[in-house]
Parts: sequence; structure tokens; C-alpha cells
Amino acid sequence: MRKNPPKTLEWIGGVDGSLRLIDQTLLPLECRLIDCRSVEDVFEAIRALRVRGAPAIGVAAAYGVVIGLQSETSSGRGAFDRRLDAVCERLAASRPTAVNLFGALERMRRTAAAEPSLPPREMLARLLTEALAIEREDREMCAAIGRHGAELLKDGQGVLTHCNAGGLATAGDGTALSVIFAAAAQGKRLQVYADETRPLLQGARLTTWELIQRDVPVTLICDSMAGWVMKEGRVQSVITGADRIAANGDTANKIGTYSVSLLARAHRIPFYVAAPSSTFDLSLADGSGIPIEQRSPEEITRGLGRQTAPDRVETYNPAFDVTPAALIDAIVTERGLIQPVNSETVRAMLQPS
Amino acid sequence: MRKNPPKTLEWIGGVDGSLRLIDQTLLPLECRLIDCRSVEDVFEAIRALRVRGAPAIGVAAAYGVVIGLQSETSSGRGAFDRRLDAVCERLAASRPTAVNLFGALERMRRTAAAEPSLPPREMLARLLTEALAIEREDREMCAAIGRHGAELLKDGQGVLTHCNAGGLATAGDGTALSVIFAAAAQGKRLQVYADETRPLLQGARLTTWELIQRDVPVTLICDSMAGWVMKEGRVQSVITGADRIAANGDTANKIGTYSVSLLARAHRIPFYVAAPSSTFDLSLADGSGIPIEQRSPEEITRGLGRQTAPDRVETYNPAFDVTPAALIDAIVTERGLIQPVNSETVRAMLQPS
Repeated sequence: MRKNPPKTLEWIGGVDGSLRLIDQTLLPLECRLIDCRSVEDVFEAIRALRVRGAPAIGVAAAYGVVIGLQSETSSGRGAFDRRLDAVCERLAASRPTAVNLFGALERMRRTAAAEPSLPPREMLARLLTEALAIEREDREMCAAIGRHGAELLKDGQGVLTHCNAGGLATAGDGTALSVIFAAAAQGKRLQVYADETRPLLQGARLTTWELIQRDVPVTLICDSMAGWVMKEGRVQSVITGADRIAANGDTANKIGTYSVSLLARAHRIPFYVAAPSSTFDLSLADGSGIPIEQRSPEEITRGLGRQTAPDRVETYNPAFDVTPAALIDAIVTERGLIQPVNSETVRAMLQPS
Repeated sequence: MRKNPPKTLEWIGGVDGSLRLIDQTLLPLECRLIDCRSVEDVFEAIRALRVRGAPAIGVAAAYGVVIGLQSETSSGRGAFDRRLDAVCERLAASRPTAVNLFGALERMRRTAAAEPSLPPREMLARLLTEALAIEREDREMCAAIGRHGAELLKDGQGVLTHCNAGGLATAGDGTALSVIFAAAAQGKRLQVYADETRPLLQGARLTTWELIQRDVPVTLICDSMAGWVMKEGRVQSVITGADRIAANGDTANKIGTYSVSLLARAHRIPFYVAAPSSTFDLSLADGSGIPIEQRSPEEITRGLGRQTAPDRVETYNPAFDVTPAALIDAIVTERGLIQPVNSETVRAMLQPS
């Protein structure tokens, strides 16, 4: 076990500092840290999935706002606030599905709006404090999700996960993987099956890497094998993260999650989602309103180091799919378990405490 | 459309000739022909999937028997027959799941056993005639499967297929793809969705290549997207090939087929298998007796040109899974449709005509 693994993302310095993050596109072969010093650096890092995972994207975007305003402190609040709007608009365009992104940007806007007469330099410091708070709350959220979810996993179980909902997807221990880490810390022996998660292989590259670092047994499989390992009796629970959850519990997550949920149901295996309350978008009654990001054909045809399909081939590459609430046995949030999953139980858990 | 595409495999010359085949591991970037001049050449070509697909493996193995006996014609029949046994034993060890392989080898053995007093040189010529007959029958089989199956596909349908059951898997037009080609030749407009089929990407590399060559519209997706394209209403039929079919219709095919069959059932989409009668193994009452070939971890962790998982990761890599007959709406054989699929309908179709 690596004693001091680098942090998924971290603010370096004071108000004029920068955002340091692991370039996750290079994992697991190289753990390279990059420093984002401009809004475009942050935009590109999110867009290219150097930082990914709904909660981590939110934290990165909050720091991106601070970075974008560092050069805007010599004029008055008018120019500062206009620049804030432009920066938020730019960062919001980086990934369309993760609602945490919009939540973090909105929180930064509200922070500025609450103190309209604060001079730019002090306002910048206040925004950094808010971004640091978003990161700290994200860590606390991960720990709470682990605590609430650990009871779902039993000693000796095989647990299948899809994509990466680990520490690399958050500022803390992750969402789905936090549940696994917490259960393992209680002494439960788990065998994780990690879907490699085509096209970008977050499961092969990131989930296995995190689990190996934490000494949790993990077996890598191709996405096409999930049904068969269930049929063979190797899996007793499935748990994934989420990118956006509608008011009725319908859940957008990495493409392939919907298939896994159907396969789990066919084998009577419980299917769990782990996500913070910031992942819920109560403005959407159900999953039909969640925009699905379409990504480039090259992720399929050249995403793995060499061309794997003919030059002229058509592709279809949705980044996410939507799993209906009816296929989800429980949603683990930092506030507790939503179980069963429907509009009433979601509303009850999310109402202001 | 390419006018004279190279043949999947072809015998070159007379009794002292060789087996020429497309090295399918290089497709679609390169269509290189290789000549097999020894049993080890044929064994390696089958083992490394340079030639693959249950029917094509059978044809290649039959020619491999001829090649293995070319140097054994100067002694008597005793030495010739012992060499025949050794060659068959070696070739049978190349892939454990495809029953056509064992069927073709058994047919070559029977041909020799039927004429125990024929001198080696004449026996060799007789065996080449038999291998050529196996190849010719394979072509006729493909055409008949296309004729029988075309009625299952309707004008305007989206048709999903997994792996490659095309001309590259046979000496002719394929099995599942023969059905698609025959329906397209009838003027039906089809939109094929090809699962890329990890780990070895036969769908991305081979199925798209064949369909593009024949001007049939094809869209490449990752295996994890199959459920979602069904949910979106893009697919009205699923058709795959088979590597071995038990007496009750349980079907071993490329890993992932079982998942696709479950996903199709969940969306009330018919799931069809296309396979010649030589794919049935009536000695097995059901699919539980079909041996599942386990392949190397590197196919998952390094199968795509670069390493995609940590060094120490455990993997599980079954090459096949078994789809229960209850999930198969029809099996298309060269003799006609088996529909519904059960022990009685399988027996009725396969009984000697």
C-alpha cells in the first residue's frame, strides 16, 4: 500500500495560487501532476477528463473560478462580477451532464452576490475560502457515504462496480468506492469485480489502481463479462456512482450502468448507487430530461493507442445512460440511505435539515 | 464496395499445396494473406485467432490435416495413419470450445478409416478432396442460412450483432451476417449496430469491415452501450453466431452474448442465433457441459496496443459464455428455423434427413 498517494486535486498557495491535479488520462502507467493556472487550463482538464467524476469536477470548477478572477482585482467590482459571469459560463460548458459542476459554480456566484460591496481583492479571498469549503465538504461527504453504505455489503461478497466512483472522482475517498473502503475497514472480506468501462477504461485504469493501492482484492473484467460473472454466482452486490439524479431517483451515470442494472435485476442481485445530495437535480421530475453528452468517435475507434476500426465507420458514443429508479435498490447519500427509491423517499431525504 | 475481396481462407495448389488465409489479427488496418505450410502454422493461426469463427476453424483444421500428412507418404499406411492421429490431436488442442473443429477432424479421420488399404499418396489426395468438400459445403451452408433467416429481419429494422459471425468466420458469407446480407439483398433497409466485442474487438475490426465492404449501414458501439441503444428504440432484432450448441439449444458464443440476450429479453426484442448443424453437439444435454476456454490476461490489459491496467491487476477472461435456450427466440440453421428452441425442436431439425 502506497503511504502518501498524491491527492486527486489540491489548491497550492494562497489567493494567487493554482490548482494541482493528477492527470488521470495517464493513469495507471504514470501518476503525473499538472498545475492549472488559467481558466482554459481548468476547462481543458475537465473536458479531456484529466479530472473527472461528478464531485471532483465540481471542486475543480470552484477553484477554476478563483483562478479566473486572479487577474481581475485591479478594477472595480463591476468588472470583477462581469468576469465572474464569463468564467462561470465558460466552465459550465466543459461537461453537460454532471450537475455538481453547475452546483459548484452557482455556489461561487451566490458567494459573490452576497457581498456586492466587498472590494475585488477581498472578494477573491472570500471565493477561495468558499472553494476550499466545497473541497472540505466533499471529503466529509465521502466519509459519510462510506459510513452509511457499508452496511449494504456483507462479509465474503463479490461486489461489481462500473466506471470509477473512487477517490479519483472526488476530493475524498469516493462514493461507490468509499462504501467498499468503509466495509473493508470493518473487516469484511470483499472481492471487487471492476468493469473496464469502455470507451475510456476508467474501471481498468483508475478503479483497479485505487483498489490495489488500498489492498482491496479486485478482478478486472471486460464490460461484456458482467452478466456472465453474475450468472456464475461471483457477484452479490453492484454499486456505482452517479452523474445526475432526477427527483424520482432516475440516475444518469457512465454508459453501461443501465445494462449492468438490468443484468443485476435479472440475477436478483441488489443494485446500489452512491452519490452526494449535490448530485440530485430536483428540477427534473425524471431521467428523461437529463442531457446526455455525446463524445467523439475517436474515443471508440482510436481510444486505446491504436486504431481498432475501419476508417469510414460510423459510431454512436453517448457518455452516459439513465438507469430508471425502479432498477435501483438503494441510493447511498451522505445523509443516509434512500430505500426504496422514488419521488417521496428522495424528497424526504433531501429536504433541508 | 470492393469487387474482389480476398477469401477468408483458400487452398492453393494440389495435394502438395498450402492453406492461404487472411491474418484477421491485422484487420481492418491491413488485409495481409499468410500461407500455412505446416501443422504448427495452422495450429498457431487458429490459436492466435488469425483465422477464427467456428465454421472457418473447422475448414482450416481439415486443410491442416492434409498439410500435416504431405511429408508422410513415402512409408506405409501404418506410419501415415499414426501421423494422422498425431496431427488431429495437435489441431484439436488449438481451441477447446468450437465443436466444428472436432467435427472436421473426425470427418477427416473417418475418410481415412474408410479406405484402410489405399496407399498414402492416394489417401492424401482423397483427404484433400474431403477438405475441399468441407469448404464447399460450408459455403452452401452459409447461403442456406441466409435464405432461411432473411424472413426474420424486416425492412427498416435496427439489427444488433455481437462479435463476428460473417464471411470472415466461415468459408462463405457467414452465419449471422449471411442472414443480414440476404435480407439486404431482398431490398430491406437495415441499420446494423455492431458491438465492438472486447477483448479482441472482432466486432469493431471485422464485422464493421465486412458490412462496409458490402454497403450495409453499420454503426459501431461499445459493448456497454447495447442496453442503451435498445432502450432508445434503435434495435428491433438481435442476431449472433454460435460456437457450440447443446441438444436443448443452450448456446455457447463469444463472451457478452449472454448479456446481450438478457438485455434483448428485457426490451422484448427477439434474439436469434445463426449456426450450421455442425455447431450442435448432441452429446451434451444442456449448456452446463460446454467447456469454456479461458484466455490470457494480456488480452484485457494489453490487447489494444498499449497497457490499459496496472501491472499487478488480476483479470478474469472467459472467451465464451452460454446463453440458455429460453432466451433464444429462434436458431437459424442451413436446414431451416428452429423455433421455439428446445430439445424436441432441435432433435426434429437435426435428425438425419
